Order: sequence, then C-alpha cells, then structure tokens
Amino acid sequence: MIPKRSLHIKRVPKFYGNQLSKFKYSQDIPTHELLARLGFITYPRSGLVNWTKLGLSMQDKLSNIIRKRMDEIGFEELSLSLISHRKLWEDTGRWEGSEIFKLVGDEYLLVPTAEEEITDYVNKQLESYKQLPVCLYQINPKFRNEKRPRGGLLRGKEFLMKDAYSFDLDESNAMVTYEKVVGAYHKIFQDLRIPYVKAQADSGDIGGSLSHEWHYINESGEDTVFKCSSCNHASNVEKTLSFPKEVDESSEILVKYFTTKDKSTLVCAYYPSNRVLEPKFIQNEITDLDLTEHNQDELLDSFSNKDDLSKRFVRIMDARLSPRSNLPDFPLNFSNRAMITTLTDVPLVLAQEGEICAECEDGEITATNAIEVGHTFYLGDKYSAPLNCAVDVPTETGMTRQTISMGCYGIGISRIIAAIGEINRDAKGLSWPKSISPWDVTVVEIGQDEERSKEVFKLLNHGKVDYCLDDRDVSMGKKLKESGFTGIPLSIILGKHYPIVEIEVRGKKYGDTWKHTYEKHKDEFDWKVQYDNEQVNDVKHFVHKDGLVTVVNSLLNDM
Amino acid sequence: MIPKRSLHIKRVPKFYGNQLSKFKYSQDIPTHELLARLGFITYPRSGLVNWTKLGLSMQDKLSNIIRKRMDEIGFEELSLSLISHRKLWEDTGRWEGSEIFKLVGDEYLLVPTAEEEITDYVNKQLESYKQLPVCLYQINPKFRNEKRPRGGLLRGKEFLMKDAYSFDLDESNAMVTYEKVVGAYHKIFQDLRIPYVKAQADSGDIGGSLSHEWHYINESGEDTVFKCSSCNHASNVEKTLSFPKEVDESSEILVKYFTTKDKSTLVCAYYPSNRVLEPKFIQNEITDLDLTEHNQDELLDSFSNKDDLSKRFVRIMDARLSPRSNLPDFPLNFSNRAMITTLTDVPLVLAQEGEICAECEDGEITATNAIEVGHTFYLGDKYSAPLNCAVDVPTETGMTRQTISMGCYGIGISRIIAAIGEINRDAKGLSWPKSISPWDVTVVEIGQDEERSKEVFKLLNHGKVDYCLDDRDVSMGKKLKESGFTGIPLSIILGKHYPIVEIEVRGKKYGDTWKHTYEKHKDEFDWKVQYDNEQVNDVKHFVHKDGLVTVVNSLLNDM
Repeated sequence: MIPKRSLHIKRVPKFYGNQLSKFKYSQDIPTHELLARLGFITYPRSGLVNWTKLGLSMQDKLSNIIRKRMDEIGFEELSLSLISHRKLWEDTGRWEGSEIFKLVGDEYLLVPTAEEEITDYVNKQLESYKQLPVCLYQINPKFRNEKRPRGGLLRGKEFLMKDAYSFDLDESNAMVTYEKVVGAYHKIFQDLRIPYVKAQADSGDIGGSLSHEWHYINESGEDTVFKCSSCNHASNVEKTLSFPKEVDESSEILVKYFTTKDKSTLVCAYYPSNRVLEPKFIQNEITDLDLTEHNQDELLDSFSNKDDLSKRFVRIMDARLSPRSNLPDFPLNFSNRAMITTLTDVPLVLAQEGEICAECEDGEITATNAIEVGHTFYLGDKYSAPLNCAVDVPTETGMTRQTISMGCYGIGISRIIAAIGEINRDAKGLSWPKSISPWDVTVVEIGQDEERSKEVFKLLNHGKVDYCLDDRDVSMGKKLKESGFTGIPLSIILGKHYPIVEIEVRGKKYGDTWKHTYEKHKDEFDWKVQYDNEQVNDVKHFVHKDGLVTVVNSLLNDM
Repeated sequence: MIPKRSLHIKRVPKFYGNQLSKFKYSQDIPTHELLARLGFITYPRSGLVNWTKLGLSMQDKLSNIIRKRMDEIGFEELSLSLISHRKLWEDTGRWEGSEIFKLVGDEYLLVPTAEEEITDYVNKQLESYKQLPVCLYQINPKFRNEKRPRGGLLRGKEFLMKDAYSFDLDESNAMVTYEKVVGAYHKIFQDLRIPYVKAQADSGDIGGSLSHEWHYINESGEDTVFKCSSCNHASNVEKTLSFPKEVDESSEILVKYFTTKDKSTLVCAYYPSNRVLEPKFIQNEITDLDLTEHNQDELLDSFSNKDDLSKRFVRIMDARLSPRSNLPDFPLNFSNRAMITTLTDVPLVLAQEGEICAECEDGEITATNAIEVGHTFYLGDKYSAPLNCAVDVPTETGMTRQTISMGCYGIGISRIIAAIGEINRDAKGLSWPKSISPWDVTVVEIGQDEERSKEVFKLLNHGKVDYCLDDRDVSMGKKLKESGFTGIPLSIILGKHYPIVEIEVRGKKYGDTWKHTYEKHKDEFDWKVQYDNEQVNDVKHFVHKDGLVTVVNSLLNDM
C-alpha cells in the first residue's frame, strides 16, 4: 500500500538546460566545456570549480560507492583539516613543493594530500601495536597550485579526492592491507562499469616501493600505458621493461655515468642514441645506484686514480645493443681488468610499442593513452620514519621500537566524473552509467492530467526510482533531446496512449540481463520493444504503467 | 523475512574510548577539550580541526536534517569553490576584511562566506526575471583567519556552515522567501530538540536591514539575548529597545553630536553617563542619521554660523532622562529658536535587565547569555548593486532594469555540535539528542554466544537501528560508563537473562510518547521498567528480544 500523504514530485534542477539553446552540439567541443555548458559545474576562475546540483548528485553517488567498498574492507572514514602547518611538511621535506598553496604569513598550506597530517594524527592516537592495522580514509577537497590549469576537472586548483592511508606493523602486514585495497578498487571500478586498467607504476614524489595506477584507456589521456598482448601485464611508461624484437647494430651508442651510493663503483650505462635512458631501470640490476645527476667529468675524475684498487667498474648495456656493438672508448685506465664487470641484455630505455614484454618475454606490447583516476602506493617508512611514527613491539629479548609501514591510496572523484564524461560521450552528447548519473530517469508529460500524474509519481516514488520531472515550458522534443545531451540513461513519456508508457533508452548497455525480465513479464505488462534499424540496440520500450517500475529497474540494471 | 546473507555487525570506531582511562571526568573540563578527549575531533593546531568517525557521523546527521528542511522550501543545494578571487571582494569592499585568509600571491582568498561568489554565479545563469526566485544553499567548509581561536568548534579557523542565499525580484517577494526560511529554521531547531530563541538582530558587517539571530540560551555563551516576560519578544543587545521603570534625575548627563547625511541637521543625543549610547537607536527616529564618528568640535564648528538659516538642530533625549533633567549647556547660538526640535522619551542606550520592553511597553526584560547558532539576513541590494545583479522587467512603458533583492541564511554546523555538547552535558559526561548522536545504541555483550549475536544483530539490522557493538577487550562496566560519557542515548546489554534484554537509558527525554507503546505492548514483550529513586525518570528497561526494536524505537522517539 502506498502511504497517503501529499505527493512529492522531484523536478529538474534550477537552470537545467539553460544554455542549451545557445549552442550547437559538436563532438569537437571539449568535455570540460560541455560539462559547464550543460550546467554540471561552472568555472568561476581558471582551475576553480562550482558544483551545481547536477554535478553534486554525481559526486554524492560516486562518493557513496567508494565509501561502501572502503568500509567493507575495514577502512574508517574521517575528515582532516584542510589547512596544515608547515612544521610537518618541513619534517618530510615537502614544504618547498612547487605546487603547494600557501597562506599569507608563510605558516600554513592548503592540503594537497594528507600523508603528513594523518601520520601525525595516528601517531598521537596509537597506544599499542595491538591496535594495528589502522586503516583510514577521507573524501574531501584537496588543493594544488596548478600554474596552467587545464581540462577543467582533470587538472584544476582544487579537486575532490578519496585518500586512504594504512598503518601496519611491518611490510608483510602492509602487503595484506595493500591487496585488500586492490580488491576494493577492483570492485569500485567494476561498480562504475567503465573498463579500466590496473598498471604497475613508479612511486614518483610520494615515495615508497610498490605502486599501481588505475587508468581509463582514452585517447585524450595524458598518460601512456603499455599492455602486453600475451600476459596482459600493464604498466605505465616509467615502469615498462621491454626487449627489442631484434638488436640494432647500426645506431650510434651513448654512454652515461653513474655511481653507487657508497661511491665505490662507477656505473657506465650504454644505450642507443635514438632512445631515452631511464636511470631507474639500472636500479633493477644495481640496487645501490645513486640516481642523482652528477657532472660527468667530475664523476670520471673521482675514479681516475688507477692505483686505487678499491674502485670497481660496471658496464651495463641496453638490450637493444649487441655484444658486437661499437661502444665508445672507455675514458679511464685500469691496473686490472678484473675490476670491470659487464652486464648485457638489460632493458635500460623507455619501452616502445611493438617491443617484447619483459614480464613474460613472449607477448608484444602496445601503447595506449590513458587517464589516471586512481593510485595505490606502498609507502614503507617514507613518512613514518621522519615523523617518528613507531610502536613498541615485544620480542624475546624485551621491547623493541618498530617504525610503522604505511600505504596510501587515492581516487580522484572529480577526475572520474570528467573522465567518464569524456569516454562515454557520443554524437548525442554525454552518456552516464547509472552508477553516477545525476538522475536515472527524466519524466516528460504530454498534456496535463492530474490523475495520471498522481498514479505515475506514486509508483515511481514508491519504487524508489531516481527520476526528475522536466516541467519546463518547452516542447517535448526539446526535453527529450536535452535529457539525452545531459546523459540521463532513460526518459519516460506520459502521453496519449496512457496507461501505456513509453521509455526511451539513451544510456549505454553493459549487459543484457533485462531480457530475462522481458521474457518473464512481457505479456503481463503488455511490454513491447522497438529496436534500431540494425536490430542491435533496443531504443524504445512500451509498457503498461503497472509494469513501469519493474521495466525501468531491469533496464537500469544493465546500464 | 530477514534476507539470508552474511551478517554485518557495526562496531565502535577505531580509538573509541582510547583516552578515557587517562583522565578523570569533571564538569570543569571545558566542552571543547572533552570533545577531543572523547575522540569526536582532534585539534592538530589551534583553531584547526580533524573530524573523526565519531564527529563525522554527527556532522552527517545534522547536515541531512538541514538538507531536508531546506529542500522542502524549494532551496537547491550546490557547492561553490572554496577559493575566491580578489576581484569580486574588491567590488563589494570586503577584500581588506580583518579575518580574511589570503593565499600567497595576494590574488585569492579562502571563502569565509559566499555572498560575492553566489551573486556572481546567479548573475551569470539568470536569463529572465521569470526564473526568480532563485534559492540556493551549500554545506561546506568556511575559513576565518581568527587571531585568537577559542572554544574549539565555537570559534575556529575553519568551520562547517550551511549558507543559503535567495534572489528575488523585489523586497516584498524577498520577504516571502525570508519567512519561508524562518519556517524551515523553526523546523530544523525543533528537529534538534534543544530549546532555542529567535532574536531580532542587527545586520552588522553583512549589511541589509532585517535580521534575526538563532540562539541557544547558555551561560557559557558570548552573546546576550534580552527576552520580554510579557510578549516574549527576544532580541540581541544591539537591537533591544527598552524604557526605564522610572526616570533617574540624579545621574550626570552626557551629550554626543551627530549630523544627518545631508549635513543639514545637527543631532544632539543626551543620555545618562552610567549607560552606553547606541547611535543606531537614534536612527529609529532620524533615519537619515550619519553614523560616522565625527570630531565633536569640528562638527559643532560646521554649525556655528548663526546666520545660516538652512541649518536645523534636533535635541534627542534618552527615555531615562526627565524633561526636568539638567541638560548640559547648548554650545551654539541661534538666531531663531524655531530651528530647534526636541524629542523626548526615546530609548537611546543599550538595555539593561529589569527595564520595560519597548515592543509591548508592558513586560520586563531579562538578559541571558546565549550561543549564536544561526543567522537570517535580508540583504536587499547590498551585494546585488555593486555586483550588478539585475534583471529586465516589463513595465507599462517598456523594459526596466531592476536590481535583485537578496537574502542570506547561515547555520553553523560545527558550532551547533559544540553548543549542544555544552548545553546537554552533565555529571556523567556528554548527552546527545537522538537527532545528531554519533550512534543511537551501544550494544554490550556479556560472554560470547554466537546464536544470540546472530539473532539480535539480525533484528537490529532489519529494524534499521543505528547501533554500535562495543567489542573492545574491557569490562562491561567500563563499556557502559564510556557509552554514557560519549553521550550515546541508549545502551543494550545482552546478558545471562537472554532472551530478556536490558536497555539502559542515558539520554535526555524530550517527551513521554514511549508510554503509549508501553501500555500497548508491555505484556506481549514482557516489558518491565525500572525508575530512579525519585520515581521520576525511567533508567532501565527489560524486554524480550522480539520486542527489542519496538521498545528501542519508542524510547528514541522521545530523545
């Protein structure tokens, strides 16, 4: 029974469709501009964003999907201050970061990320190792003093981010937590329906030793992801190791010199001049490598005393070179050739499409542009060490002080909205998956019929359908077109054939489960389907009002 | 039927009760310190706040109450950028405000309030006067460069605020909107259960001509509210007009000189030396009064030409003076006594407790300390005029340009939490009304019994009871005490008398409706009530598990 009370009808937001009459849609309009034109957001200034009701609903839906999955793996939400004091950032060496928003007075900054503050928070709360792991997350604004903001939500001065942090007793416990988060991320991205890639990544400025990027593959993306045709391994460009299909004996060979951190060894890296050396790849062979850029002459000088028998020399050769390659002359003299080690067939340069995957040594790698929407890092003690986040742990010989092993895990909420907007748009405008659509169903009425309205909106309210009535004083055609532009998955038309209701399918289908419901209920609900010309996609459904909620839900279930 | 799936049990937050063993509760501990000790928030730095799960749940509940009531009156949520550019603030003359947080570079500020940005936003969206009224609100952080932060959430550098803004065609339409908001505010404050006062207020820095403050009466409050014993009119100290019970002929009389904005009239305000003159009160009689502080001698000088017959003189005498009072000598000469007007019996000084209410001229006013938690302003064109927010309106003679009439309406969310914490605490710690309690029911188990747990948590989940199981490894007594400290309305004890469950009442009762449920179900549920010694308050309930959800809900309904 539907409870008797005054009927509440949800309506389209203020200013919905406002600017649509003024512009002609074209796929050349950049998505960030389209989002503003359609009223999801406005840009009061370059890099700054106002979220209107339309965009805010999407933020809320996406945030709740993330909350659900993070809560499921035992992470707890909190919300740290948006302002942080310089003290902690000096302790970790990040106060002088280039994109830090500082407040006048030079004491405070606007948080770009919260490793410092959350470590400080946990450190103050933590009373015993028995309380570990501590797993926390927040969904709140972050700030970055982006000098050249672009792409609207993709790279702005402020953005909404889910940032999670984990604190474990040691690395092996931290790996368990890391894998839990990876599991939750898979669920989150599956909930969103858009195909994604988890790519092995470099830890960059955040630090730590294990990290993955979560990408949407899209040609507009600024990142490059390499994927193997055989083992499906994916990694970003800074992390992709590859072998050549065949060695190239013709190209000129360059050499770059490095040293180990203990200064005992000169490392000579040889690579083809037409490729880009990635010094971090040398670290895969020589873990003690010092990545600092040294003046090459001074470095060689420090190894020039040929009587110093404690010095060692390693020649490391990129896999693209052959042993017969014509290496540059070695600039130093030796007293003993046994001081030199030579490593060959090592991937030292950034990968290129068509090379062989170094993971499986079988498949061929292909490069695709991608939009990064999430990142998971194992941080180790990068923040816990300088901030002294440690616990006393009992051992056989008494208590010992152990530094916490941390992880951090981000998802860009405003970024995902921008990325999905870009990925799913087509000739008819935007097209949102149901998971984050501003609302699921636009309702359009032809003529006014109070009895009809009462019946239908009672059904929709009772069925908890997420609809909006478009009651603007414009034509039905315009309403349907604009609902399509806006990317709303379905439209319902209440017209002269009522109680038969028409449902227009706009959104993308990610499944066909609705067909089971159709087979079960088609007669009962007088349910007819109209397909497009190629008989591939269902484009319209006609159904008796009594089956409306069932049909709508079964269609949305695939979207 | 309860659906078959793995049973999810909600548990108390991480670090719950962490610091409780370290301190002895006393009512002398300031509430802002208590909130931190109990883990609702932490203060990473003076004036800055981290919200933990405990506090965040309260923010969410309170925000949702506000959302519901604002949506009901047709306001639409949005979320503006937290960073604003100086341009708009210079246009309205607020860039040089004393508590503005500016970003390095002197171009941007952190928003303390959003009149400028929302006016700019609406101005850009508004296409026709037919779209009016536009009613918007947001719930997001605000910033204030408070030099001496105090009282934790009461006066910090960042705070969570609901700020709403309305845009109407003219003042009379704006008044309709204003009254709608007043109605919604009454509902919000009634939902929260804590007694409140709506007081006539001065518009202060925000500007405009009509405003009310919404207060919680509390002796710790920094504001003063006067209330009439007869007509119940309430107003803050800057707005309270009062008459003396009897005139005081003994006190010394002071005079202060003002002028009208057109410089035509010298206004001489006479008042007793033991009271504080409020120049704005003179404006009630002389609306054209210039409130600028003038050098008194220079002002008199400018009126000293006794042959200038265009000058006028008004002597205005506070109601506490009698016509027979000995006024100071008038320092100027006149050519004509008709140039002087004298007004008597006007309230010119700040009210004092025990005086007569000027609204009803009957009741006596009393002064109480209060905590301001909301504010409603009619702004008129204070922001729309300098920012050129106007619409074309058709008139008989063609289109005319009309400046928008605005209103703004704030509620301090973090402030309300702090205020209610202060108001409702007692010898046993905090005590939250159900409307905003972090959770409603703490569950404590004596012994472990899987079957019992399964039964009870299924019931609680199915009944949508907002509970947390306290499964920490501490004694039952400690768990109950700490639930009480934390201010959770009810505790449930699953003990050896199961299926009889014990319910401890901690929270304050704002009603007695549970007694109807009791009369109806006491036999069915084997429901017993234990009262305190004075037989005034029910302190414990014993009930069969099958009636648990009904009893818990009926008790919470009054809390």
